[in-house]
Amino acid sequence: MSDVINKLKLVRLGIDTKNEFIIYIHEDCFVCKSEGFETSTRILVTANHQSIIATLDIIRSKILKPSEASLSESTWERLNVKENDFVTLSHINPVTSLKYIRSKIFGNELTANEFDDIISDIVAGKYSNIHLSSFITACATANLNVTEIIHLTKAMVKAGKQLHWDHPCVMDKHSVGGIPGNRTTPIVVAIVAEAGLIIPKTSSRAITSPAGTADTVETMTVVDLSVEKMRQVVNLEGGCIAWGGTIGLSPADDIIIRVERSLDIDPTGQMVASVLSKKAAVGATHVVIDIPVGPTAKIRSEQEFLKLKEYFEVVDKALGLKVKVLKTDGSQPLGKGIGPALEAKDILSVLNNDKQAALDLKQKSILLAGTLLEFGGKSPPGQGHLLAQQLLENGAAFKKFIAICKAQGGFKEPPTAAYTYGIVAAHKGTVVEIDNRNLAMVAKLAGAPHDPAAGIEFFARIGSAIDKGQLLYRIHTESKGALQYALSYARSIPNIVKISRET
Amino acid sequence: MSDVINKLKLVRLGIDTKNEFIIYIHEDCFVCKSEGFETSTRILVTANHQSIIATLDIIRSKILKPSEASLSESTWERLNVKENDFVTLSHINPVTSLKYIRSKIFGNELTANEFDDIISDIVAGKYSNIHLSSFITACATANLNVTEIIHLTKAMVKAGKQLHWDHPCVMDKHSVGGIPGNRTTPIVVAIVAEAGLIIPKTSSRAITSPAGTADTVETMTVVDLSVEKMRQVVNLEGGCIAWGGTIGLSPADDIIIRVERSLDIDPTGQMVASVLSKKAAVGATHVVIDIPVGPTAKIRSEQEFLKLKEYFEVVDKALGLKVKVLKTDGSQPLGKGIGPALEAKDILSVLNNDKQAALDLKQKSILLAGTLLEFGGKSPPGQGHLLAQQLLENGAAFKKFIAICKAQGGFKEPPTAAYTYGIVAAHKGTVVEIDNRNLAMVAKLAGAPHDPAAGIEFFARIGSAIDKGQLLYRIHTESKGALQYALSYARSIPNIVKISRET
Repeated sequence: MSDVINKLKLVRLGIDTKNEFIIYIHEDCFVCKSEGFETSTRILVTANHQSIIATLDIIRSKILKPSEASLSESTWERLNVKENDFVTLSHINPVTSLKYIRSKIFGNELTANEFDDIISDIVAGKYSNIHLSSFITACATANLNVTEIIHLTKAMVKAGKQLHWDHPCVMDKHSVGGIPGNRTTPIVVAIVAEAGLIIPKTSSRAITSPAGTADTVETMTVVDLSVEKMRQVVNLEGGCIAWGGTIGLSPADDIIIRVERSLDIDPTGQMVASVLSKKAAVGATHVVIDIPVGPTAKIRSEQEFLKLKEYFEVVDKALGLKVKVLKTDGSQPLGKGIGPALEAKDILSVLNNDKQAALDLKQKSILLAGTLLEFGGKSPPGQGHLLAQQLLENGAAFKKFIAICKAQGGFKEPPTAAYTYGIVAAHKGTVVEIDNRNLAMVAKLAGAPHDPAAGIEFFARIGSAIDKGQLLYRIHTESKGALQYALSYARSIPNIVKISRET
Repeated sequence: MSDVINKLKLVRLGIDTKNEFIIYIHEDCFVCKSEGFETSTRILVTANHQSIIATLDIIRSKILKPSEASLSESTWERLNVKENDFVTLSHINPVTSLKYIRSKIFGNELTANEFDDIISDIVAGKYSNIHLSSFITACATANLNVTEIIHLTKAMVKAGKQLHWDHPCVMDKHSVGGIPGNRTTPIVVAIVAEAGLIIPKTSSRAITSPAGTADTVETMTVVDLSVEKMRQVVNLEGGCIAWGGTIGLSPADDIIIRVERSLDIDPTGQMVASVLSKKAAVGATHVVIDIPVGPTAKIRSEQEFLKLKEYFEVVDKALGLKVKVLKTDGSQPLGKGIGPALEAKDILSVLNNDKQAALDLKQKSILLAGTLLEFGGKSPPGQGHLLAQQLLENGAAFKKFIAICKAQGGFKEPPTAAYTYGIVAAHKGTVVEIDNRNLAMVAKLAGAPHDPAAGIEFFARIGSAIDKGQLLYRIHTESKGALQYALSYARSIPNIVKISRET
């Protein structure tokens, strides 16, 4: 039904709208007139035998001629065009999967085929931000049931590449977010790979947190690996730490995460689908899921934990994965750093066995690595943590980490921020509670994860005795504006670090 | 906490993004660098002592210098700036009402204050399309309860102007959508005003239908009246038919409707709030609500009708309005025309007492006008329709309608389409069912409501005997492309007009 109607010559205006596909056309363009296109019309744009759907912005000035068109930067790259190429425009077929979203909004359960259609339309770029936001919100609000989460997960796996490995045990781990600085992955991968298991780890960038593992590792090495490169690194070193986005595993996930970030939500059903679609796509067979529970963590109660655990277990089973779910302490940040480079420094300290290394980060990494070693048959039950500790403390894990970084493209030291400011205690007392959510907000306002050196260095663990004027945390930023902004927010929220009053 | 940091000179690039506020800045701009702004950052933009929040698109070409900025056309108008004016940029305060949307997503009931904050932030332009879409979807999915609908309605009234009239009875009506061509309002207003009652009618543009009353009346006269003009027209003629959008009554409604149109939904709670906020804001005291019920209408069952009726009655009571809810036939289109100009022609035929005027449209207009005449004390119970019929058939209503149009800015004949194409019956039989939803879709693909002359002329009422090859409906378009597109859609859907096979 699509009806190719005319050609316009491309001019590069260089407008970066991030992932939203936009086409710019002059108001006097004959194609718009004959086709009835107006601002906000969704149009099928074809060039080089590839098509995508873009939203029309009309140009009412001389930056374009009526016979010309321009594309936003991501559209330009997706269609792989160059200046003076031609694009053809046509009406789009109605995006039929949108009716399943309306169906979900009205409370219906969606089928496997309906999720497949939605996800493949999302990956094909047929959804505008308005549609994506509605899909995410509808699934969050209506609380997908377990069957729907299974359908959604499988649809997300199908929509991208899938890896296969010639090993009976392919290990993987995932930590549910919500705890600033919970950055065990690089340490765990190094230990597990050093022990001789296969662990082709892909990680995501931050959704609502100040840093994702991919953001953190990117301050030390290259994380956007091709599938071929990833395979090479794993064959050479047994493990890797790659950003899942560029590999093309579960590509829908990256599109959905971008809108979730704008909404500052990460709802349960989509979280489970997001995590497990990545695990299934990467070819994992054995997965350890770490769920931190605490009063301001993402999961706040035993009840929520049990519900999420059940979701993970049921969906894992449907996908044919073996899974172990661990409940861990989610009451406060792990390590001292919050933000990409600051977390990377914590990781290097632990791997280096520095005296001032964060003990909690070390212990948690040993717990998770130990569980994986037992799960993969490298250690008898109950003994995994001893082997993990040994491989960490004898320096073997550090060497393995550097070797992995070198295989991925070289190791570099994480950067240091240009501006810092210390927040001190207003009175003497003992730290009784940490507001993780607002602490993360301060780190984000400081610029994390976009500015790699930005974030927070945190010194006030729960139970610490604090003097008046003692440093609680230090804000790091790459710009003055960000520092002022993070500071004013920090000052406007009382008790980010709650200190008991001595009586 | 907002922190004004620097000035950029404005250049008009003339980019029309509709209502989405966008600011364009060069990638090398020092403000972006020092503040850490990147593509998609939401920024507070101030000029002429007014501020709005806009989304940043970064320019990676020479169409702007690093010391310049541009604004999308709607932003330019909203800030009332001119070329070479300066704008200052600063970080925005976090939009705190967004957390109430997250709360709604997680199933909580929202309070009156929370709705007030959401609606006033929406009117202030603080929500991106992603946020608006999430709010609309969350409220639709979670099914607002009656208390929340009352809060939402009052918040929408408060966020705009409110009119007051020195009359004990200020009449109003509303027809719930879903029936193509259900355009009784102009006829009802003419009759009721002619009878001596006050009826300051505001109407909306189409949400998901091929025409709203404002779109239809706009083909005959001016509908974007100021409050002063509206008052003048009503004082002179007793009634008016104005577009609610420009008057500033319930301005949140127009923003919400725009996103609902992209999502092609019009959920119950928001519909009730949208309708009644407009009635309360316009100062109505007596309101008749017409709810068409039919298998492909918006309201499809007795149960849905009763639920909606209850919502209207409870919310009306909370707002201090008197309301009568009527259930009407929603099985097929009313009149022959679907689309702004075609519906306007139907209206003029009825007012003119043409022989070929649509009888169903006439009868329904008499029913609604009669109910209003009784409600307003101009006729004893059960006699309203007689008075209404008399005022229509003696030509008084027609004269009143023309007088109202003249008072609003002059009367003109509705336009005629450049292209038409007739759809004929594939076989002999009797019309047994009309697929209103797909019929409306064909009219929209033909260009309605954007192209005023576009739409459908409909000839195949339920029960009609039809010969093979007989005209069922005629598609009208303003462009060839739209005609081809509407046609291919019409041909791809079987049984838009379902004809029984003679046996």
